[in-house]
Amino acid sequence: MMPVATVMPDDTPMFDPRILQELDWSENTTTFSPAISPLDPGDGLVLRPLCTADLNRGFFKVLGQLTETGVVSPEQFIRICSQTLLQIELLFSVSLNCLFHTVPAPTETFEHMKRSGDYYVTVVEDTNLGQIVATATLVIEHKFTHSCAKRGRIEDVVVSGECRGKQLGKLLTSTLTLLSKRLNCYKITLECLPKNVDFYKKFGYLVSDENYMFQRFFN
Amino acid sequence: MMPVATVMPDDTPMFDPRILQELDWSENTTTFSPAISPLDPGDGLVLRPLCTADLNRGFFKVLGQLTETGVVSPEQFIRICSQTLLQIELLFSVSLNCLFHTVPAPTETFEHMKRSGDYYVTVVEDTNLGQIVATATLVIEHKFTHSCAKRGRIEDVVVSGECRGKQLGKLLTSTLTLLSKRLNCYKITLECLPKNVDFYKKFGYLVSDENYMFQRFFN
Repeated sequence: MMPVATVMPDDTPMFDPRILQELDWSENTTTFSPAISPLDPGDGLVLRPLCTADLNRGFFKVLGQLTETGVVSPEQFIRICSQTLLQIELLFSVSLNCLFHTVPAPTETFEHMKRSGDYYVTVVEDTNLGQIVATATLVIEHKFTHSCAKRGRIEDVVVSGECRGKQLGKLLTSTLTLLSKRLNCYKITLECLPKNVDFYKKFGYLVSDENYMFQRFFN
Repeated sequence: MMPVATVMPDDTPMFDPRILQELDWSENTTTFSPAISPLDPGDGLVLRPLCTADLNRGFFKVLGQLTETGVVSPEQFIRICSQTLLQIELLFSVSLNCLFHTVPAPTETFEHMKRSGDYYVTVVEDTNLGQIVATATLVIEHKFTHSCAKRGRIEDVVVSGECRGKQLGKLLTSTLTLLSKRLNCYKITLECLPKNVDFYKKFGYLVSDENYMFQRFFN
């Protein structure tokens, strides 16, 4: 019998799934061949919000295929070790903050994102495998400028190696771009490597005159 | 006597002022001449979190000097009209959402930002005038990547025309960059026009290889 104190990850979605289901797909301006949509992303596939249980369904494995540099660096190795710690946390559903005070448990991050109402972490699940095979995130930022408007940001678009060629990156990007419009964002932005510029132009994105600058404190 | 139902804007800060006061300014790597700091930003000036009452203390007038294009466009005129509506809202402390359902009241935006705990809208007040003369924002974004790390974004850095030359833009940028490090962000980013790249390099920012792309739905 399961101990009463054990809290198992469940299928709580990060946001209301209906907002994806009710998107007006006729507003999509990208061509899909064969035709797919958020409601019909392909054979055995489902497009939906990230759920708590997905943290144990290969979500981190997919995210691990996202690199900012395209090469495996020593820092990435350290990151992989950190992700192993996260897996331990997930297994026991506890935070190791007592040992590593700067690393929150994934469930804490999930809860914070859900509570804020501004994170739309979206996944594609292969229902035959019970595994997450693609993900992308829309983050909403609130502004005092532009008459207290909202701005969207596309983050962390990644498709697992085995599922490339199924238009899932296109589907997620198109879906989240439409979603940002549905949520009344005045604009949506993203950062990408020059090799990906043509990909994002398909959805109506333009290269800005502005430079993207950064400062990194750790990896 | 004031009617009981009237809710007046008050001095509730968006975040705990101590986090600014307790920053380790010895970690600042930028030169200020004359020397100023978050605790001593200049004669008659105070650097602190945005408070509710600041929404009536010229905060929007300062923000109005921030333009993305550097020219006054018809869209900006529309924006100015919208800001007039916001001033009406502030005056009566009510939302005009019933009339303009996509425009939240500034107090709603303030409350949402405060509740999330991820917005550090920081201002400089001229205490002699009782007016806001400069502002900048640090927004924290939570990630599942990088071992569930946080990322900082610098947004909406603006100094009122009358207060240029007092190093307030430098002071705010340096303060919020230090704050992002203090909050354990793994990196901090911003977007800026090419003419401002050298300014941000002073604080350790580098121009990324990545492109900044956008899609605008309305102004």
